[in-house]
Amino acid sequence: MTVKTEDENPTAAVMIIGDEILSGRTQDTNVNTIAKFLGALGVDLVEVRMVHDVEAQVVRTLNELRTSVDYVFTTGGIGPTHDDITADCVANAFGVGIDERQDALDILLARYGGDANLLNPNSRRMARIPDGASLIVNPVSGAPGFQLENVFVMAGVPRIMAGMLNDLPHRLRHGQQVQSRTVKATYVPESLAADILKSLDAQYPDLSLGSYPFGIYPEEFGTQLVIRGRNADDLDAAFAALLAGLPPIVAQARQRYPDARFEEVVG
Amino acid sequence: MTVKTEDENPTAAVMIIGDEILSGRTQDTNVNTIAKFLGALGVDLVEVRMVHDVEAQVVRTLNELRTSVDYVFTTGGIGPTHDDITADCVANAFGVGIDERQDALDILLARYGGDANLLNPNSRRMARIPDGASLIVNPVSGAPGFQLENVFVMAGVPRIMAGMLNDLPHRLRHGQQVQSRTVKATYVPESLAADILKSLDAQYPDLSLGSYPFGIYPEEFGTQLVIRGRNADDLDAAFAALLAGLPPIVAQARQRYPDARFEEVVG
Repeated sequence: MTVKTEDENPTAAVMIIGDEILSGRTQDTNVNTIAKFLGALGVDLVEVRMVHDVEAQVVRTLNELRTSVDYVFTTGGIGPTHDDITADCVANAFGVGIDERQDALDILLARYGGDANLLNPNSRRMARIPDGASLIVNPVSGAPGFQLENVFVMAGVPRIMAGMLNDLPHRLRHGQQVQSRTVKATYVPESLAADILKSLDAQYPDLSLGSYPFGIYPEEFGTQLVIRGRNADDLDAAFAALLAGLPPIVAQARQRYPDARFEEVVG
Repeated sequence: MTVKTEDENPTAAVMIIGDEILSGRTQDTNVNTIAKFLGALGVDLVEVRMVHDVEAQVVRTLNELRTSVDYVFTTGGIGPTHDDITADCVANAFGVGIDERQDALDILLARYGGDANLLNPNSRRMARIPDGASLIVNPVSGAPGFQLENVFVMAGVPRIMAGMLNDLPHRLRHGQQVQSRTVKATYVPESLAADILKSLDAQYPDLSLGSYPFGIYPEEFGTQLVIRGRNADDLDAAFAALLAGLPPIVAQARQRYPDARFEEVVG
């Protein structure tokens, strides 16, 4: 693990656990939700892994990630069924015990009006928490997630996962938020915008310049240009240079594709 | 690498390359498209990784994946701009050279009616192909992907990526397709379905039994039940047992949540 200075942003990885994602049955949206959540806190998401509900793979992946980034966020596998193995995998990865815990059980019981008869053994599985973990509040459906050291274990259902994120900001070191400046749609091909992007990239090594083509020629087509970074002054300067450089590029594009519609929208 | 017998399905990994995914700017859909494509061919997707447009990370990840699964599919980073580094990363990972190639250049030229003046140096970058690779046809926008040994390099734009998949089936060993049987919606909580799932899981170790809750009590809520596997007889038998076991579970649920609506829909 590399030593980082305090002014560097913390790093994070996401591990999506679930056969339903890898089989194509379910379109994941949790990565995007977590990515936006971390971006707002200045935590840099550096890697995502999606794995099967298989203990060896989950344990190996978790151990690789938790020793290489500051924070790991997992989703999936903490429900009441036989394939909900995430809590056991986390205990296994850390080499700690796991048992039913009263505070977690109380939360589940409260969902049933305190009637323990309504809580079957399968539901009680959701109160099994690795030793040393703290609970993560689930404001949506009760059954908690948990944090063990730098690993945050959350539900897979997107609405529940999003609810659990509300209990995380105070547990994380916040970094400097990455901001962006965007040219929403310039109707030029990516190849014509490449020179100015390359030149700005060289001039501002701490900024990240992205270009995202949309549409396919001869339909309406163009490129979205995005500058991202932490230094607002650099961002403003690079964005001004980009805007100043676009008109001749648009003119050049107009010459090449006389039938195409060109219109510059900045946002 | 473990030795596999011919009757086992080939394995695959997907590597999504792109800052725009990890920043949360873009919701990935390529994983889902590739997962469905592979499922239909009987190729087992065992892992997905999403990484930044950073050479060291791309090369390291690619080398880890290509030596641990049969096929690796990458998306992103093969356009005309400075951050399109995938082709160079692949050459670097395999330790081979990379250069502009005439057959790739011809394809790009054809898009411009054969007029080389319309092809600027940035566009020409898309004709740089690692030594020894074969091209992957791009029926959408021309610029090809490529295959080097067991690695398939495709565009990041979903529509173009999906088009490139059409050129892959004949290059892959096909396995036995995973089929599924689904109870689309049984309005019982997952915890009540857990026993029968666990028992079927024990009885049919080659099948995979999944349960996917939807809705949150006290709203309309329930669970989708999915059985997946390659043996149609086992699938049919397990599905019949599941359907036979559901009525008493639904009756039990009705007792517990008198206000909830219960209705079993099988599909």
